[in-house]
Amino acid sequence: MPHIQLPEGLPGIRGAMAFRPETAKPLNELVEVLLRYPHTLTQGERELIATYVSYLNDCHYCQSAHGAIAAAFLNDDEELVKRVKADFQHADISDKLKALLVIAGKVQKGGKHVTTEDVEAARRQGATDLEIHDTVLIAAAFCMYNRYVDGLATVQPRDEAGYRERGRKVAREGYINVSKEYLPAETAAR
Amino acid sequence: MPHIQLPEGLPGIRGAMAFRPETAKPLNELVEVLLRYPHTLTQGERELIATYVSYLNDCHYCQSAHGAIAAAFLNDDEELVKRVKADFQHADISDKLKALLVIAGKVQKGGKHVTTEDVEAARRQGATDLEIHDTVLIAAAFCMYNRYVDGLATVQPRDEAGYRERGRKVAREGYINVSKEYLPAETAAR
Repeated sequence: MPHIQLPEGLPGIRGAMAFRPETAKPLNELVEVLLRYPHTLTQGERELIATYVSYLNDCHYCQSAHGAIAAAFLNDDEELVKRVKADFQHADISDKLKALLVIAGKVQKGGKHVTTEDVEAARRQGATDLEIHDTVLIAAAFCMYNRYVDGLATVQPRDEAGYRERGRKVAREGYINVSKEYLPAETAAR
Repeated sequence: MPHIQLPEGLPGIRGAMAFRPETAKPLNELVEVLLRYPHTLTQGERELIATYVSYLNDCHYCQSAHGAIAAAFLNDDEELVKRVKADFQHADISDKLKALLVIAGKVQKGGKHVTTEDVEAARRQGATDLEIHDTVLIAAAFCMYNRYVDGLATVQPRDEAGYRERGRKVAREGYINVSKEYLPAETAAR
């Protein structure tokens, strides 16, 4: 049971956002910019970073929700998503993304864990300043979203099918658009 | 030296925000809603929560910047800010704020550390659902800001006087307003 009275029928971060639309607006805008705006990293790659960090933080809702969105962007390859969580160095992803996942994993532990060597290793695989910046911020942001979702003890369903269906919808429509289902129009809109 | 090429002369998060105004906008909006909007917790109390979490995360820039803003809201009582960081249970703050700081400290470790007992203890001191929600989200958000600032190895000055002066300015004018100094108008504006 959630620690506070959240609107029913909205699992994970959705219930928390519906409880507090004023903070939901920048939270949705941040994830929309980071994970959906045009970028040299694909949407699937950025969702994998979000999923990996949520896995490290042991947040069931976030790793399931973003894992499903990642799969939706990656030809429904759910096995790849699982492999990235368990052992990304041997997953079928680019060496650049592997180097960025190393940085993301360091950020999850704490910002000071990221070393010059980590960043140089990513650069050697072609990572740009923007890609490194966004990797750090995606990882940092999911350290927030994960704590928000777990810190309120939100409802976190266990059925994979629900996440899969929702993941496809979010992949098609985007975070801000789907949030209009449960947020007042003026807070959901950009 | 920062891990990526950030604009010079802008310490801490300001350099990172100037590098990426698209993400700076929701990051500024989030902190403005959480720490400045009208609330049953004072601005000083909310800044103390932000300062305490930044201290736990060992982020020099954030604990200095928000500690200075907190002091500006608390009759320039810098000793109180130091006491809250070192030993808040014996600081001259309300029992409700102490109970909320316990929750914030748990969130810093990870969302699952927050227990029903922690939340009930806060309620016994009069904390509302909104206050508990915002405490969790402030703590979670500073786990992001701290990682963002340290994960990019931003420049973090050591002189207290600079933070003091800046803290008074931010306390007077607010986060979004002061960010207009270094962000394009369309991204800084609400």
